[in-house]
Amino acid sequence: MSGALPRAAVVLSGNELLDGRTQETNGAFVSADLSARGVKVTSVVTVADDEERLTAALEYSLAAAPDLLVVGGGLGTTHDDLTAACLARALGVSLREDPTALGMVEDRVRWVAERRHLDFDELFPLARRQALLPAGSTPVPPAGVAPGIAARRGPTRIFAYPGVPYEFETMWLSTAARLADEGFFPEVAVRIVRIFGVAELQVAPLLNAEAQDLLETGINVGRGEVTVRLRYRRGTPADAQATALVAALTAGAPVFSSDGRTVDDLVADALRDGGLTVAVAESCTGGLLGARLSARPGSSDYFLGGVISYANEIKMELLDVPAGMLAQYGAVSEEVAGAMAAGARAATGADYALAVSGVAGPDGGTPDKPVGLVYVACSGPRRTKVVRGLYPGDRASVRDYGVSAALHLLRRELAG
Amino acid sequence: MSGALPRAAVVLSGNELLDGRTQETNGAFVSADLSARGVKVTSVVTVADDEERLTAALEYSLAAAPDLLVVGGGLGTTHDDLTAACLARALGVSLREDPTALGMVEDRVRWVAERRHLDFDELFPLARRQALLPAGSTPVPPAGVAPGIAARRGPTRIFAYPGVPYEFETMWLSTAARLADEGFFPEVAVRIVRIFGVAELQVAPLLNAEAQDLLETGINVGRGEVTVRLRYRRGTPADAQATALVAALTAGAPVFSSDGRTVDDLVADALRDGGLTVAVAESCTGGLLGARLSARPGSSDYFLGGVISYANEIKMELLDVPAGMLAQYGAVSEEVAGAMAAGARAATGADYALAVSGVAGPDGGTPDKPVGLVYVACSGPRRTKVVRGLYPGDRASVRDYGVSAALHLLRRELAG
Repeated sequence: MSGALPRAAVVLSGNELLDGRTQETNGAFVSADLSARGVKVTSVVTVADDEERLTAALEYSLAAAPDLLVVGGGLGTTHDDLTAACLARALGVSLREDPTALGMVEDRVRWVAERRHLDFDELFPLARRQALLPAGSTPVPPAGVAPGIAARRGPTRIFAYPGVPYEFETMWLSTAARLADEGFFPEVAVRIVRIFGVAELQVAPLLNAEAQDLLETGINVGRGEVTVRLRYRRGTPADAQATALVAALTAGAPVFSSDGRTVDDLVADALRDGGLTVAVAESCTGGLLGARLSARPGSSDYFLGGVISYANEIKMELLDVPAGMLAQYGAVSEEVAGAMAAGARAATGADYALAVSGVAGPDGGTPDKPVGLVYVACSGPRRTKVVRGLYPGDRASVRDYGVSAALHLLRRELAG
Repeated sequence: MSGALPRAAVVLSGNELLDGRTQETNGAFVSADLSARGVKVTSVVTVADDEERLTAALEYSLAAAPDLLVVGGGLGTTHDDLTAACLARALGVSLREDPTALGMVEDRVRWVAERRHLDFDELFPLARRQALLPAGSTPVPPAGVAPGIAARRGPTRIFAYPGVPYEFETMWLSTAARLADEGFFPEVAVRIVRIFGVAELQVAPLLNAEAQDLLETGINVGRGEVTVRLRYRRGTPADAQATALVAALTAGAPVFSSDGRTVDDLVADALRDGGLTVAVAESCTGGLLGARLSARPGSSDYFLGGVISYANEIKMELLDVPAGMLAQYGAVSEEVAGAMAAGARAATGADYALAVSGVAGPDGGTPDKPVGLVYVACSGPRRTKVVRGLYPGDRASVRDYGVSAALHLLRRELAG
């Protein structure tokens, strides 16, 4: 079906994206958004801040005649901001100062100068080059200082934005709203099936067993979850194929969501619907679970906070974990994880409390308690439940798995 | 100078990387590692799991005759794992089952089956396709189940690994160690200058004022920091240019590090050197500061933990913030941030305690206390210092800035 969908290419420029100084996020963001709107992203090219390379990347992407080309980065005030010049070269036009763009830049520099108590007349000449656009293009209003660029070549709509993620995202969403009004995006359905507790190897055969020629399917794994994603044109016989495939997955694997909601969504919804609160007690995760529970707007409705009990003294003093229990079983044990959760519940008055204690590594592992061993506990009105896990990967991976396991435990306790 | 350096291209495959299901990390990881080893990464192409597209991306990357081509993803057991087949097409050879690779797969499947109590004879046929390699290539020992692929075309060394980040990273590092033994990497110096508290606009002119034709320079911004990076061939007159440029930056901007260390490094080193401990009290960041302080191995030497006081009740009960102070000034205030820090220091016995309280948004802003307003406080043996900030962007951005501001405050208090 993908032949009938609009196609998009993405080009991101910036040396900092290629030498690992900066985690590239704009490509993932715009790809996810385009995908949800029924546009197939066929390539994302990240290139150095180099006039030849960036021009070649634009030409390469335009050569495939996509319906949309989104460009991020290289619209700033420094010598390695080359996007306007390279886009002009790729389009075979010259650069010229655009009066509308110049007005936008002036407004924004005035705002920055006032806010930071700087001299406008000193800053403005530095920022002025941001008003140079390829001839025939129009400026996109800035979210920061630099305006974006809107252009066209043949069938391709071209939009370029600065690379600062907040600016890129804000400006793309405003463009997308305009494209939606024009009817640019197709009627596409996406179904996401989420599975927890089995390996990809066990899910793949379920996928292959069902007819799916009208579906675009994808499978991926992370944090102990296997996610299957179906995309298809709404209102065709594909609907029936999708329903059958979701049913087969649900029958054959521990599916916890088939309506798109993540474990974070399910936990947030269950807490809010029940008028319940949650608190945390974190050892090896050091605050990561709290950070994830408080990541979404409005989480103060159900998340109270808790205790980061990285040191054993804090487990004893703020969570009332008995010193004798720590001495007998060690901090990474079923007993201590359970006591941490119960202690956090008592200390905060929350309806539920989650605890995590584990060996995140790379040091501190023993034959009995290897790196990757994590206990998660959930203390609620009915009981305190503890689950043991042994997770792969490095320190960040083990911590991430621990957070995810704690959320899944809470999801099950709230459902039970 | 970049002409003389080895060049690398990177190709990453996976639909999940293009529709935003998964944050791509392998490209950033290998790019950073190659850059630190003196290899210039000229492009990273991310492509869909599509035989034509992936083959075209490999051909495009090979056409530039780079010294190195690193491929990530598409080496697994499912129908969208196409890397071996596409690489064979791009190299103009056929696929064949490699006996060494088959042995590796068998070993790893046996290990998985034992660990998960599954039936080896059921799993092995599903995994067997992972032993199919392009003719003339050799397997790279797996970090997970799937072996990698090592091949050559003309001047280009080609290495393909599975896309699971832990496997990709482990296998690349093992390849890189082998390449280092062969003398593949040049003698390159990298200097990183980090600046906190001014805008990119104010730093850029300092860069342009110095001779730098022997240097490769880059500048980028994030979390309130401006980072300037110089790369050059060691032991040439470039050394002098680099030294002069670092001196000019240090004279003209608030440079806090010119030896590569991050604010996280500086804080960790100062705490460890002084035999000091730190604790946290987090409101709007919900645990993110603790997560960052505990992200590195061995952080238990100085990080004790603390309190996530998302709800006001927890600020009062666990941090002894007076109810009257909360009522008079509100939770997001200089007074409460200071009291939170002092309270966390008292509750944990840490030498220093950091507090963060702010309006992360998108809701909850008022004209007096807009979204983005964050107070960070540091309570130490000498005093409690509070700093007010107003940060841009969305909820995640404001939280991230708040964490960064807190670390910079601690850095300054430890230095003072």
